[in-house]
Amino acid sequence: MDLIEATYIVTRPDREPEALAEAIAREQSLEIVRELIPESIAASHLGRVLAVEALDEERYSLRIGYPAHLASAQVGQLLHLLFGNVSFYPRVRLVDLALPDSLLSALPGPRHGLEGIRKAVGVDQRALLMTVLKPRGSSPEFLADLALRFARGGGDIVKDDQNIVEQDLDTFRRRVGACARAIEQAAQSTGRRCLYLPHVAGSGDHMERQLDIVASLDLPGVVTCSWVMGLETAANATRRRQLMWLSHPAMAGVFTESSEHGVATNLLLGTLTRLAGADLSIFPGRGGRIQSGVDDERATCTALTTSLGNLRPTLPCLGGGKRLDQLVETAERLGPDLAVVVGGDLLSCGENLEAATCQALQDLQCATRDV
Amino acid sequence: MDLIEATYIVTRPDREPEALAEAIAREQSLEIVRELIPESIAASHLGRVLAVEALDEERYSLRIGYPAHLASAQVGQLLHLLFGNVSFYPRVRLVDLALPDSLLSALPGPRHGLEGIRKAVGVDQRALLMTVLKPRGSSPEFLADLALRFARGGGDIVKDDQNIVEQDLDTFRRRVGACARAIEQAAQSTGRRCLYLPHVAGSGDHMERQLDIVASLDLPGVVTCSWVMGLETAANATRRRQLMWLSHPAMAGVFTESSEHGVATNLLLGTLTRLAGADLSIFPGRGGRIQSGVDDERATCTALTTSLGNLRPTLPCLGGGKRLDQLVETAERLGPDLAVVVGGDLLSCGENLEAATCQALQDLQCATRDV
Repeated sequence: MDLIEATYIVTRPDREPEALAEAIAREQSLEIVRELIPESIAASHLGRVLAVEALDEERYSLRIGYPAHLASAQVGQLLHLLFGNVSFYPRVRLVDLALPDSLLSALPGPRHGLEGIRKAVGVDQRALLMTVLKPRGSSPEFLADLALRFARGGGDIVKDDQNIVEQDLDTFRRRVGACARAIEQAAQSTGRRCLYLPHVAGSGDHMERQLDIVASLDLPGVVTCSWVMGLETAANATRRRQLMWLSHPAMAGVFTESSEHGVATNLLLGTLTRLAGADLSIFPGRGGRIQSGVDDERATCTALTTSLGNLRPTLPCLGGGKRLDQLVETAERLGPDLAVVVGGDLLSCGENLEAATCQALQDLQCATRDV
Repeated sequence: MDLIEATYIVTRPDREPEALAEAIAREQSLEIVRELIPESIAASHLGRVLAVEALDEERYSLRIGYPAHLASAQVGQLLHLLFGNVSFYPRVRLVDLALPDSLLSALPGPRHGLEGIRKAVGVDQRALLMTVLKPRGSSPEFLADLALRFARGGGDIVKDDQNIVEQDLDTFRRRVGACARAIEQAAQSTGRRCLYLPHVAGSGDHMERQLDIVASLDLPGVVTCSWVMGLETAANATRRRQLMWLSHPAMAGVFTESSEHGVATNLLLGTLTRLAGADLSIFPGRGGRIQSGVDDERATCTALTTSLGNLRPTLPCLGGGKRLDQLVETAERLGPDLAVVVGGDLLSCGENLEAATCQALQDLQCATRDV
């Protein structure tokens, strides 16, 4: 039977590691006392312990196999299977994951992915530059002007700040429409179209109507705060309209920040976000205002881009307050399959935003040549 | 201006506590360097530090006021405002929350709530008994028979195990229909209707169609894994159909489990879940297989039931493997406004499930009299 292999590290386990592994295997698959599981259901549905290994005096690695059909070919259910109730167990962290081909081929994965984005912006090789429209409270004209100058400078991708949220659709349409026109205006003069990704929030009809507006403006995609909206909800809503989907990590730090608990960054904002179908995934990485906790940014880049069934690669995006002076070093460190999100530091250039964008792109071009 | 007052405890802050408080206030509201915020926007949109207080040698309390309109009258956006990017800050935990009346009246709150559930089950006073249909992999007939015997014994509420998920709607309809008929059959003989709450999962149309089926079977409500599906998504989808909504805490342990990070249980599974409109909220509490981490179960019960604007109280449900022998002590400890979820321990009674349910209800009745 096809298994999902999940590896947890437990620190200072509250019982014998083998017993804890059995408990997790049962909790996450059938959540019922062993005596009440008929053998036929145990054979087909019960999680099983594959390996228990001491790592040091405090830590143990527990490898557990879950029957793959328990994920029900749904990203949400996969998350639930891997870290639902066990999230309440002390000091348990999911650190590794191997999925069978049967499940990989049943999950959506990116519709456009890294290559689709490269094609859309017309950049084959170098690392991409992304900026952010903010602050909330600004007029549509102010934000559109930022977008215009970034796009005129040759910037690749501009997204709405995820703090920008409208309660009424007319305000949303006005703001997003103004930015879309600015991008179009820049494209007329540069001959190249910057990708503009508005932020869509909320739920139900309100969320759907925002996506309709984005699609009606012929915009390529959107940003969602997927860990607020629900990863699968965001995936489903954007996919139905064939929009590019940028997944923002707001609130995901509750999974990743502790070294002893939660889910490793490379799995959460890497593998799982890619499986859900994000075309772009923002994560903190090194440097800047927000940094990843204990997991390596390279592992997250790898999870987003390495071979994974037939799934397209997702574009890794380093966010969290990266600065212009970190661009070259970041691109040299991580290679060209990357976007660096520079928000405040680029917007601080004021009148020189267009020139600063142009310079930043030249820097990224050089960094790529140097690699 | 109306403010949302959020209190964070930070342990071993990575900078001066006052500077960290300013950083959080800015990060969560406008996420941009201070120089780029015009004064008019700062006045109306920027979070502000209300108080910084040393608690002991390691810990500081930071009270921050956010302009209430930043929540956009959306539960998801409120979550994002309170713990979006700051989730990536080390050792920061949200521990207290005060909302202005303007926001309280704009958020849905429970549609039925504790009183609606008491009315539906016809129990005025005592603590309620809930059980769980499982394991996944069982036939619809097997699960329906469990429901029948629990309902015949006088049980109050039965929910699907949140591991039970169907990929196709026919299977869902068959299973849920069988259980609904069993409940109806029991009601014919007892004259009292047990509440049956099926588990609904997935996203988009698939999720909506499951809710349609539940509504078409005249069932009173559903269970969702709200921290997988998205709290606001679950709230919106159930509310539109006027269904009772039981919010299951799967995956919420990533917020609550660490004592130094995340969001306190009484806020997450109490206040915020109630604001979203859950009629019933499951949380671990004391005793049994899963226990709450650092937060007091009483604080969560209070958050769900105490006066909060004009919002109806939510029924607190203690889950996580509670046993029959804990019923009386739990009801005596926490009072009658409570449901205790007894799954495996009740199902283990096998042939005696009906009698055991009957006995458990008598125990709860006595416990209420003793209080």
